[in-house]
Amino acid sequence: MATEGGWLTFDVMHQNIPTATTIASRHQAIAPYIHRTPVLTSRLLNEISGAEIYFKCENFQKVGAFKARGAVNAVLTLEESELKKGVATHSSGNHGQALAWAAAQRGAVARIVMPSTAPEVKKAAIKDYGAQIIECEPTLAARESTLNRVVEETGATFIHPFNDDRVITGQATCARELLEDVDDLLDYIIAPVGGGGLLSGTALSAHYFSPQTKTLAGEPEGADDAYRSFRAGKLIPLENPNTIADGLLTSLGDKTFGIIQKYVSGIFTVSDPEIIGAMRLIWERMKIVIEPSCAVPFAAVLKNKTIFQNKKVGVILTGGNVDLKKLPF
Amino acid sequence: MATEGGWLTFDVMHQNIPTATTIASRHQAIAPYIHRTPVLTSRLLNEISGAEIYFKCENFQKVGAFKARGAVNAVLTLEESELKKGVATHSSGNHGQALAWAAAQRGAVARIVMPSTAPEVKKAAIKDYGAQIIECEPTLAARESTLNRVVEETGATFIHPFNDDRVITGQATCARELLEDVDDLLDYIIAPVGGGGLLSGTALSAHYFSPQTKTLAGEPEGADDAYRSFRAGKLIPLENPNTIADGLLTSLGDKTFGIIQKYVSGIFTVSDPEIIGAMRLIWERMKIVIEPSCAVPFAAVLKNKTIFQNKKVGVILTGGNVDLKKLPF
Repeated sequence: MATEGGWLTFDVMHQNIPTATTIASRHQAIAPYIHRTPVLTSRLLNEISGAEIYFKCENFQKVGAFKARGAVNAVLTLEESELKKGVATHSSGNHGQALAWAAAQRGAVARIVMPSTAPEVKKAAIKDYGAQIIECEPTLAARESTLNRVVEETGATFIHPFNDDRVITGQATCARELLEDVDDLLDYIIAPVGGGGLLSGTALSAHYFSPQTKTLAGEPEGADDAYRSFRAGKLIPLENPNTIADGLLTSLGDKTFGIIQKYVSGIFTVSDPEIIGAMRLIWERMKIVIEPSCAVPFAAVLKNKTIFQNKKVGVILTGGNVDLKKLPF
Repeated sequence: MATEGGWLTFDVMHQNIPTATTIASRHQAIAPYIHRTPVLTSRLLNEISGAEIYFKCENFQKVGAFKARGAVNAVLTLEESELKKGVATHSSGNHGQALAWAAAQRGAVARIVMPSTAPEVKKAAIKDYGAQIIECEPTLAARESTLNRVVEETGATFIHPFNDDRVITGQATCARELLEDVDDLLDYIIAPVGGGGLLSGTALSAHYFSPQTKTLAGEPEGADDAYRSFRAGKLIPLENPNTIADGLLTSLGDKTFGIIQKYVSGIFTVSDPEIIGAMRLIWERMKIVIEPSCAVPFAAVLKNKTIFQNKKVGVILTGGNVDLKKLPF
C-alpha cells in the first residue's frame, strides 16, 4: 500500500477481468438496444464547482438507469437453451427493472425476487415488462434463499446485479461512450459506488481507452464499505447502511473489489445533506430529474474543490428513478 | 366566423406583423446568445398518447425558459443611446429574469418591477443577473403605475412581456428551430397560451416555414381568456384567473390576439388535475424538470386523443423554473 497525491493506491494480484476487446465488442452488441445517452454541460454548475464537468446522462437510459447496459449484455450472451429457462435475480431497485426489460428484448421470462415491502410502483414497473415477481421477507437471507429456490425449480440463469463479468462489461460501455463523446482529454471520471459494477466497469474503460484519465468514486458516508475496504485493502461488508442514496446500499463483491483496488485512484465519501444539495443543484440548474444515488459523484466534486479546480471531469449521472411523492427537498 | 373540422376560424383585418424575413434574420442575430435546445422524443409517451410527439425543450433554454428569446431579441434591437438608459418591465416570472439576463448581455441596466409578495428565490435570480428590482403592491394597477414612474424617471425602454413585435419575433424562433430539426412534416405544433407571445410567434413560424402544419394551443381552464376570446372573436380579458399554471395568468394583448385569430387553428382547455398529470408523466418518463405551465400543451394532447391519433405533433415545452419545495405531486 502506498499513498500518491493524497490518495491510497494498492497492488493487487492479477485476476481475469474483461479486456478492452471484450468491452468494445460487447458495446457493439448492445448498441441497438440501449440509448447513446447525451453528455450535458452547465456553465452555472461549472462556475459553482470550479471544474469543467461533462455529465453523462444515464437518467435518460432505457429503464431510467445505466443498469440496462449490464442486464442486456448479460442476456445477450445467453444461449437459446438458457433463454428458454429464463433469467432470475433479486432486486428491489433498478437492476430488477433492467433485467425484466432486457429479458423482454429476447422474449425470455425474467423472475425477480423482491421484498414484500417493496413499493407498489416498482413492482408495477417490473410487471409492465412482463416479468414475474416472487415476493419474500425483507431480509437478505430470505432474498437469497428465495432466489436459490427459484433457480433450482426453473433452471433460470441468475444474473447478479454487479459481481458478474457480463454485467461489469455492460456497465463499462457507459464510460467508453463518455470518453468518446468528449473531445478533450478528461482528467477524471467519477462514478458512484454501491456494489461496484459501474465503478469497476468505468475504471476498466478509462484504463483501456483513456489511460491518462483517473477514475474516482463517490460514496455515501452512511454506506461507506467501498471507502473502508479500499483503505484497508480487504473487503469490509456494510452493516446497517443508512443513507438517502438507496441505490448504493449494497456491499462490494470480490470481482468488483479486485478491479476497484487495481484501477480506481480514490474514493470520496459525502453526507446525505451534501447529496441532497448536489441533487437539488442538478434539478434546478440543469432541469433534469436524477435520483439521490445519482447525485453522489457531483456532491464529491463540490466537496473537494481544490482537487477538481480547473480539471476536466466526467461525472456519470446514473439514473432518474425517483418517487416524486418522496422528494427530499 | 366559420367552423372547420370542429375548430373555430376567423377572418381578421390585416395588420402589420413580423414577416418571414424578419423572423429568419432576427433568429440569426440572437443565435449566439441562446441555446438551440434539443428536440426529445419518448417511445413511452408516444404509446400513452397515441401520437408521435416531438418535444422542443425550452426548459433547457437560457434562464430556463423560452422568454430568453424574445427578451434578447428586443434588447439587441436597441440603439446604444437607448441601451445607456436601460430597459424596464414588470414581471413576477420568467420574463423579468429573461430581460435581466438579456440586458446583462449588452451591459445595460434592467429595472424589474415586481410585487412585494414575489418569492425571494425569484428576486435573487434577477439580482444575480445584475438587475435592479423595484417593489410595488401586488396589484396590476400598482405594477403599471410603478413601471410608468420608473420609465419616466430613467428614460428606460419598456419591454412588454408579450404584446411587442420584437418579443413575438424572438419567441417565433423557437418553432422555427423545431420545424428545422424534425425531419418529417409536423401535422400540428402546440404551445401554451398566456399573453400569447409564444403562441403568436409559433403560429407565424408555422405559417411561413411549414404551411401545412397547423398551430394549436393549450390553455388552463382557470385562465381561459384566449379560448373565450378566440370563440367570441373579440378580446375578453381574464377576471380572477385561478390555475396552477402560474405562467399563464395574463390575458392576450391586441397584437397577439390579432395574430392568433388569423393563424391559430384551435385552442384546447385543460383542468389543473390534467396539467399535473401531464407534468408528472413528463417528469417520470422523460426525466426532465418542467414547470406546470409547460405541461399544458401535452395535457391537451392527452385529453384529445382522437384528434392527435397517429399525428406528428410538435409540443413546445416552455420552461423548467419550478419551486422544488412546492411541487403538486
